[in-house]
Amino acid sequence: MSITAPQGFRAVGVAAGIKAAPKLDLALVVNDGPLDVAAGVFTTNRVQAAPVVWSRQAVADGRARAVILNSGGANACTGPEGFADSHRTAEHVAELLEVSAQDVLVASTGLIGERLPMDALLEGARTAAGALAAGPAADDSAARAIMTTDTVPKQASATTASGVVVGGIAKGAGMLAPQLATMLVVLTTDAVISAEAADAALREATRTTFDRVDSDACMSTNDTVLLLASGASGIEPGAEELADAVRAVSADLARQLVADAEGASHDVHVVVTSATSEAAALAVAREIARSNLVKAAIFGNDPNWGRIVAAAGCVPEDVAPFDPAALAVSVNGVQVSRGGGVGEPRESVDMTPRECLIEVDLGAGDATADIWTNDLTHDYVEENSAYSS
Amino acid sequence: MSITAPQGFRAVGVAAGIKAAPKLDLALVVNDGPLDVAAGVFTTNRVQAAPVVWSRQAVADGRARAVILNSGGANACTGPEGFADSHRTAEHVAELLEVSAQDVLVASTGLIGERLPMDALLEGARTAAGALAAGPAADDSAARAIMTTDTVPKQASATTASGVVVGGIAKGAGMLAPQLATMLVVLTTDAVISAEAADAALREATRTTFDRVDSDACMSTNDTVLLLASGASGIEPGAEELADAVRAVSADLARQLVADAEGASHDVHVVVTSATSEAAALAVAREIARSNLVKAAIFGNDPNWGRIVAAAGCVPEDVAPFDPAALAVSVNGVQVSRGGGVGEPRESVDMTPRECLIEVDLGAGDATADIWTNDLTHDYVEENSAYSS
Repeated sequence: MSITAPQGFRAVGVAAGIKAAPKLDLALVVNDGPLDVAAGVFTTNRVQAAPVVWSRQAVADGRARAVILNSGGANACTGPEGFADSHRTAEHVAELLEVSAQDVLVASTGLIGERLPMDALLEGARTAAGALAAGPAADDSAARAIMTTDTVPKQASATTASGVVVGGIAKGAGMLAPQLATMLVVLTTDAVISAEAADAALREATRTTFDRVDSDACMSTNDTVLLLASGASGIEPGAEELADAVRAVSADLARQLVADAEGASHDVHVVVTSATSEAAALAVAREIARSNLVKAAIFGNDPNWGRIVAAAGCVPEDVAPFDPAALAVSVNGVQVSRGGGVGEPRESVDMTPRECLIEVDLGAGDATADIWTNDLTHDYVEENSAYSS
Repeated sequence: MSITAPQGFRAVGVAAGIKAAPKLDLALVVNDGPLDVAAGVFTTNRVQAAPVVWSRQAVADGRARAVILNSGGANACTGPEGFADSHRTAEHVAELLEVSAQDVLVASTGLIGERLPMDALLEGARTAAGALAAGPAADDSAARAIMTTDTVPKQASATTASGVVVGGIAKGAGMLAPQLATMLVVLTTDAVISAEAADAALREATRTTFDRVDSDACMSTNDTVLLLASGASGIEPGAEELADAVRAVSADLARQLVADAEGASHDVHVVVTSATSEAAALAVAREIARSNLVKAAIFGNDPNWGRIVAAAGCVPEDVAPFDPAALAVSVNGVQVSRGGGVGEPRESVDMTPRECLIEVDLGAGDATADIWTNDLTHDYVEENSAYSS
C-alpha cells in the first residue's frame, strides 16, 4: 500500500475487536530505518485526547520507530486512566518490536468519553506485529483500519526527481461524520533527512493542505498528522524537493478527505484573491466556508452571492482590510457580483458538478488563500443527529 | 398593539405590493412627541444595506419622528441607486408627515441584491400615513408587516414602577430563515429621557439580549434595533429603571425570535459560569452555540457532552483561561461531564422539551454569560436550500 511505497516501512491493519462489529480497527506502521526520524502536528484544541498528549511528547525528540492507530474509540476525556491506556499501548508495542516505548506513537479516533477495550487492543497489537514479522502487508489494510465513517480508504504517494518516495494514509473528513471525525494522517518517506527538516516540511505542508480543509468548523480533540523518515533510499533530497513532495501527498490526501465527507453533495473550493495578506485572504475564505447559509445554498444549487458577500463582511476590518464596494464574486466561473453589487445573472451558473468553485476578489492587494469545505445537507444533519454518540 | 402601548405613538402595517403575494409588507411607526428622542444599534457587518447606512446617519443626532419598515426586499448590495431609494423613501414619508427627512428612519428586510419596487413602496407609505391620520391601528398590523418567514408576530411591553411604558415589535430569528433573516426591532417608550440616556439604555439592553441570540452565526447586512421616546407620559424615570424596562422588553422579544426560528426543534440556552470574565464566558458560550455538531446532536436528542467539551476547547486560552480538566457540563440539569471526563449517564437526560439548557462550569472565576441558539435540523437545511433566494 502507499504508506509502504517508500523503502523501509511495513504496515498492516487487523480486526482487534475494538469496534462492535468485526471490522479492521487497529493499524501498525513500523519504520525499519536505518533512520528513525519523525515529526508530528497535532490538534490545537485545548481538550486533547490521551494519545495526542502521549504522542506529542514522544515525538518531541524527532524520533519514532512505530505508530499504532485505532478506530472505534478516541480515548479523549478519559482522565489519567485514559492516558495510562495510551502509555500502556506504547509500552506493549515497544516490547513486541523490541524498541523504546518513547519511540512508539499512538493515535486514536472514535467516541469521546469512553475507555478503550484494552485487552482487545493489546491482543490486536500482538496480532499485527506477528503479521508484520512476515513483511509488509500487500493490501490496504492499514488505511482501512483507521476508517470510521469514511467510505473509502485514503492513500497517496509521490516520487521526487532524485528518486525519493513519499507515501501516506489518512482518515476523516473535516468533521462531516457522526463523531468528531478526527483527522489521522501518517506520511512516510525513504529520504535521508534530519528531524528538523522533517518537522519543517511537515508543518509547511500541513499549513497549506490539511489546515485548509474546514468541512464544518469543528476541531477534533484527536487530530494527528505524522511524518516518518526511514532514510532507506540512501538519497538526501534538497529541502525544497522533499517539502514539495510532502506537500503534494498531503494535498492529495486532503482533497480525498473532502471528497469523502459524509453527507456532502458538493466539494466547495473557496479561493480569495487580491487580499492585503495571506492571513487576510484566509480569514475571509474561512468565514465564507463556515457560513451555514452559504453551505445550505450550495446544497440547493443556488449561487447565492448575497450570502457570500454578507459572510465576507463579517470579517473585521483590522483582520482583512478591503472595501465592500470593491468586492467581486464568481461562482463556477460566472461573476455573479461585482463592485459590491449585482453582476451576471445567477441563472447562468451551472451548480450541478460536485465541485463548486467560489472566487472572491477583495480588490485590496496581491495575496491569495483557499479553503476546501462541503455543503450543508440533509445527510449531514442525519449523520450527526440520528445516531447516539 | 404593543408598540403603541406607550403614549404618543401611532403605528400601522399595510399591504403595499412589495412582496409577490398580497401580504402586509410595509409598516409605519410615528412618534407624536412631545419628545422626538431616538437611538439605534445596527449590524456590524461591513456590508451594510442602504437603509442601514441611511438610518445610522439620520439617528446620529438622537432624534427621529418616524420609522418606515418594509419586508420583501433588503435593499442591500444595490449600490448608489439603492441608497437613493432609501433616501427617497425617507423624503416621501417626511412630506406625508410634514417632518424633516433626517427624522425618518428606514429599515428593510428580504433578498439581497435586488432593487425595491419603489412605486409600490411609496404608494404604500401614502396609504399607511392616511390610515394613521385616523389614529393608531388597534391591531398588530405593524408587527405583521415586517414578518418574512416568521410564523407569528413578535410583540412585548412592560410598565415600570413609576408608570413609564416600554413597548416593541420585532421580526427575524438569528438567521434560521430562507434569507438572511434580518433582525428588525422597534422599541417605543413614553418616558421623558435624553437622547444620551436612550442610547445608553438601548446599547446595554441589546448587548445582553439581541446580541446573545446566535441562531446560526450568520450576521445580516440589515440588522436594526431602534428605540423611540415620546415623553408623552410626562414621567422622568431613573436611568436604571428605564434601562431595566428596555432590557426586559428586549429579552422578551429576543426569546420570541429564538422560539420562532424556522426549522428549529429546540431552543438552546447555553450558560457558561465560573469564567474569569464576561467576555471569556461569552466566547465559550458562542463557540458551543455555533458548533454544528453540538446543534445536530441536540436535534437528535443526544446530550453529547464530548462535542460540547470539544467546542469549548476550541476557544484560545488567552480569550478564555480555564483548565480543560476542570470543566463540568450539565444538560437539562444532569451533570453529564465533570472534571473534564465522564459524569452522570447521558441516558438520564430528558431531551424531549423544546427548551434545552446547556450549563458549562469553567471552574476559573466568577463571571457568567449566556447565548440562545437553535438546533441544526433537516428543516433548517430545507428552508435554506430549497428556495432560490
